[in-house]
Amino acid sequence: MTGPRPAVYRDQDFPQDVVVYEVGPRDGLQAEATLVPTDVKVRFIKELVGAGLPLVEATSFVSPKWVPQLADAQEVLAELGDLIRHPVLVPNMRGLERARESGVKSIAVFASATETFAHRNLNAGRTAVCEMAAEVAAEALRSGMTVRGYVSMCFGDPWEGAVETKAVADVSRQLLDAGCYEISLGDTIGVATAAHVTALVNEHVAAGVPLNRLALHFHDTYGQGLSNVLAGLRAGITCFDASTGGIGGCPFAGSATGNLAMEELLWLLHGLGISTGVDLDAVVRAGQTITDFLGRPRSRIAMAMGH
Amino acid sequence: MTGPRPAVYRDQDFPQDVVVYEVGPRDGLQAEATLVPTDVKVRFIKELVGAGLPLVEATSFVSPKWVPQLADAQEVLAELGDLIRHPVLVPNMRGLERARESGVKSIAVFASATETFAHRNLNAGRTAVCEMAAEVAAEALRSGMTVRGYVSMCFGDPWEGAVETKAVADVSRQLLDAGCYEISLGDTIGVATAAHVTALVNEHVAAGVPLNRLALHFHDTYGQGLSNVLAGLRAGITCFDASTGGIGGCPFAGSATGNLAMEELLWLLHGLGISTGVDLDAVVRAGQTITDFLGRPRSRIAMAMGH
Repeated sequence: MTGPRPAVYRDQDFPQDVVVYEVGPRDGLQAEATLVPTDVKVRFIKELVGAGLPLVEATSFVSPKWVPQLADAQEVLAELGDLIRHPVLVPNMRGLERARESGVKSIAVFASATETFAHRNLNAGRTAVCEMAAEVAAEALRSGMTVRGYVSMCFGDPWEGAVETKAVADVSRQLLDAGCYEISLGDTIGVATAAHVTALVNEHVAAGVPLNRLALHFHDTYGQGLSNVLAGLRAGITCFDASTGGIGGCPFAGSATGNLAMEELLWLLHGLGISTGVDLDAVVRAGQTITDFLGRPRSRIAMAMGH
Repeated sequence: MTGPRPAVYRDQDFPQDVVVYEVGPRDGLQAEATLVPTDVKVRFIKELVGAGLPLVEATSFVSPKWVPQLADAQEVLAELGDLIRHPVLVPNMRGLERARESGVKSIAVFASATETFAHRNLNAGRTAVCEMAAEVAAEALRSGMTVRGYVSMCFGDPWEGAVETKAVADVSRQLLDAGCYEISLGDTIGVATAAHVTALVNEHVAAGVPLNRLALHFHDTYGQGLSNVLAGLRAGITCFDASTGGIGGCPFAGSATGNLAMEELLWLLHGLGISTGVDLDAVVRAGQTITDFLGRPRSRIAMAMGH
């Protein structure tokens, strides 16, 4: 059985193909207070991959002291079998070592666009955090892994306010030079609006970061996620992060609402006639697996489809 | 005390001024199961007006049999004093008579873009419904009222599927010819995506409906509301409907989620440097008045602001 579908209207100003990058099992779960057992996580990841999602960030080798939710990274990966090709977040050399031991092929590293978040999140300055990420990336590349780079707080920061676009592009440039195949620009606290997205993308292009090396990562804290995606599409971005079920948030910013929901991103892309290779109904079902377990409300699309 | 604000980035492709049209007390409440007492409605309306919202659709003279929630339209209006200038929905001649007795100065009429919804909602064909709206509009104009026209089901219909843009523009054209100062195109079931919005606006322009006589009215059933607003802004639309607190939905379509939240619309517009004359913090407080009463979750922006 399939649910309703949007009517398809193409707009020549948008790309024809887009990659959607699933962050629910990592970015989503790390912000959820309810501890999720390993077998539920593995089932969630397998359902996401089964829905056709090409990239599912499976877990993180962040310290269990910081994020108890992901303390079972090793156990999760042991259950994934072939799916070990999916990416894993790695914050430092110790994490990289653990990822390597688990057979991980693809990692993501992260840096901060602001000083305050760098200090609060990694207890080091912005430059030091970026250099550490670059070192981890270099070492991962030597091990034959692929490396994605995240930049956090790319639009606003709860302590510093609005973030200069140039400061973000500088960090992105460094991560790109360190060998990251793609840089994901994160609106960690969800404050961005559409023309700010356009300005940030343009700043990157001016700094020599090609469009096809950029991804955008939005949170729906202020409900702006999907309109920001639309601005990104128009600016030529072809990779977007989202979290099935809309789970997550930012544990450091006290926001009550989560990542952009993958279901809503897919509805938009499919309505624009942009192929993603993903089965929306199967994503909706995977979303229910996790929102029902967490006791969160289901995604709006799951509710609308009457699942 | 004021909450956080988006950084302001202008985009020359968007209009500089936008009118936001508040539909919470009417379109929002009519879809809520919890009966709201007259004094709570009046307080909600007064808070909305106090926040600077220029147009607050206050109630509806629809039959109490159809919408028991709005059976107290006369009592609400009696409490509004000067605020009686705000618009009121009127479905037929009987409703217009009651509106006139209450001293109403401005009404809204509605028609359907599809046959099935016309039959289900008003027990008549699409053409007959449109003709009745035109008659009500003509009579209201003779009484010195201003008249807004709504078109329902402009993008998709739960029974008929996707709706042809031309069918919508035909109905709009008729309402405009009947003397409506503005036509609000409603995505009653929330299925529209961005390029569909662009296509529908362009169809109207081709049919001789000027951009400054159009408004867009989105529901967030599939999370598409704000990205559709962005598409509308780019197409040159300068009036958008929304519902403070995101209350409402479509009682006929069984959707679980509501109208586009006014708070999220204002965040976007203010981030784009578009002036609205509205105080977002005051709107957030008004939203809490009604969501707390209804026992609904607060809007995302209210949660993010920690109200």
